[in-house]
Amino acid sequence: MTETVISSASREVVIGFERPFVIIGERINPTGRKLLAAQMKSGDFSRVESDALAQVAAGAQVLDVNAGIPLADEPGLLAESIRRVQAITDVPLSIDSSVIDALAAGLSAYQGKPLLNSVTGEDESLDRVLPLVKKYGCAVVAISNDETGISEDINVRFAVAEKIVQRAADYGIPASDVVVDPLVMPVGALNDAGRKAMQLIRRLRTELKVNTTCGASNISFGLPNRDALNGVFLAMAAGVGMTSAITNPLHGEVMAAVRGADVMMGQDPECRRWMQAYRDPSAAGAGAGRERRRGNRRRV
Amino acid sequence: MTETVISSASREVVIGFERPFVIIGERINPTGRKLLAAQMKSGDFSRVESDALAQVAAGAQVLDVNAGIPLADEPGLLAESIRRVQAITDVPLSIDSSVIDALAAGLSAYQGKPLLNSVTGEDESLDRVLPLVKKYGCAVVAISNDETGISEDINVRFAVAEKIVQRAADYGIPASDVVVDPLVMPVGALNDAGRKAMQLIRRLRTELKVNTTCGASNISFGLPNRDALNGVFLAMAAGVGMTSAITNPLHGEVMAAVRGADVMMGQDPECRRWMQAYRDPSAAGAGAGRERRRGNRRRV
Repeated sequence: MTETVISSASREVVIGFERPFVIIGERINPTGRKLLAAQMKSGDFSRVESDALAQVAAGAQVLDVNAGIPLADEPGLLAESIRRVQAITDVPLSIDSSVIDALAAGLSAYQGKPLLNSVTGEDESLDRVLPLVKKYGCAVVAISNDETGISEDINVRFAVAEKIVQRAADYGIPASDVVVDPLVMPVGALNDAGRKAMQLIRRLRTELKVNTTCGASNISFGLPNRDALNGVFLAMAAGVGMTSAITNPLHGEVMAAVRGADVMMGQDPECRRWMQAYRDPSAAGAGAGRERRRGNRRRV
Repeated sequence: MTETVISSASREVVIGFERPFVIIGERINPTGRKLLAAQMKSGDFSRVESDALAQVAAGAQVLDVNAGIPLADEPGLLAESIRRVQAITDVPLSIDSSVIDALAAGLSAYQGKPLLNSVTGEDESLDRVLPLVKKYGCAVVAISNDETGISEDINVRFAVAEKIVQRAADYGIPASDVVVDPLVMPVGALNDAGRKAMQLIRRLRTELKVNTTCGASNISFGLPNRDALNGVFLAMAAGVGMTSAITNPLHGEVMAAVRGADVMMGQDPECRRWMQAYRDPSAAGAGAGRERRRGNRRRV
């Protein structure tokens, strides 16, 4: 029954085994977004702010914030982005960078207990990131790769996750503050990527007993109709124990999949949130609101 | 590795543990379809025929055929419906009735090895339906209820399924010819219906080692945006081992969920069928064809 608690100054979110699936909005990330990158670099955070509000309105319970722009002051930009977002929304944030100084700057600017994105199984990462996690008392995303790369063998990826959890424990960081990313591969390139992800997620849940997250969109890279496939992946992953994902809440199929998984897993009492989201037929896709002509197919 | 083989005169379909999920089209059923019922009763099978073709075109590998109309000659209508459908498509059929004489008439008219829908755990049903199954060598859908009704206790439902399989074995009918329906309840009324269904499906797969099916639409009865919820259920059910479902292939979200589950379970080599279905952006919903602006969120 592992629970990972993160917070802003005024709101707490729990990622947990008996909790609704947590959506971490991925949009505030200049990678591949030229306009956003240019604006942030020039000190214009208006799109950062509007993306934050849009994602929260669409249902994200947490927001990932990344300021990785080439030839820019990433620590300064990340800290400022965090300040701007925390000024307009109280959802907890995930501080996202591959640059240690930026992680530190972000942690320093952050109000509350954030999710730090991320540490890997590489010794250099463990040695540099875990002390920050300990110092600030935050939670951390643990990526299941190490110096040898991303193994296709899920037993190796499990072992890397285990290593990170153990090394975190050495620092006095509890396993409940480590959210493992099993590393989802593109199923178009590696046709067993779905199966492997499901098996690994289940092991992380039942054996290592950690909460999990992933960049859900990776599964569908290179395939058509990505949103539908991402949604299927998220629902099935939730079914085998995944407890959060970094994804785009603006994609209706993704949110429907996550909400539906909450319903199926008994995490939406009275189906209240489902009904709230879809009671208005214009809120959903083609199937919404249509009355069923057939009743229960089992006749008495 | 259980495989249930059904066939028409010229085509075989296998429902199996290492097989793509099988969609059994539910549309040819006059229950709740007044126009269809009136037409069939008056000897007009044009809609039966067009529904058959539409469902096959939409991706159904099997078609359920039901002719349950009050005050009509159900045996005669069912036999004629089967003949009409078998004249225009070679997909195997599921012969669907709660009237023994109609099941017998349908079996007599059928060319090939059909799925018989259905037998229950009630002694009267077992005593009357299983001899037909044995005589015709068909496969049979086994509903997990008995004289005490539909138990909310999944252990009881499992025991009923076990009883049916054992009674079938007494007749010399192999477990591979018994496809168990775990009885999916409406999650809007029974909030743990999703969890219970998943647990029961997993047990039927791993312990009883039978193929499974269900009337997937039941899960969403009374809730808005039913297609999306049915799709989520089917994907998650496939993830815990369900191997077929009786549902409406004309609902895009349902077919996307099933195709997506095949991809995730490694049952769509090279994602060929997924790409074939969605390569054309107009074939899917809002998410199809849109290029991702972000690449792999894990930066090297």
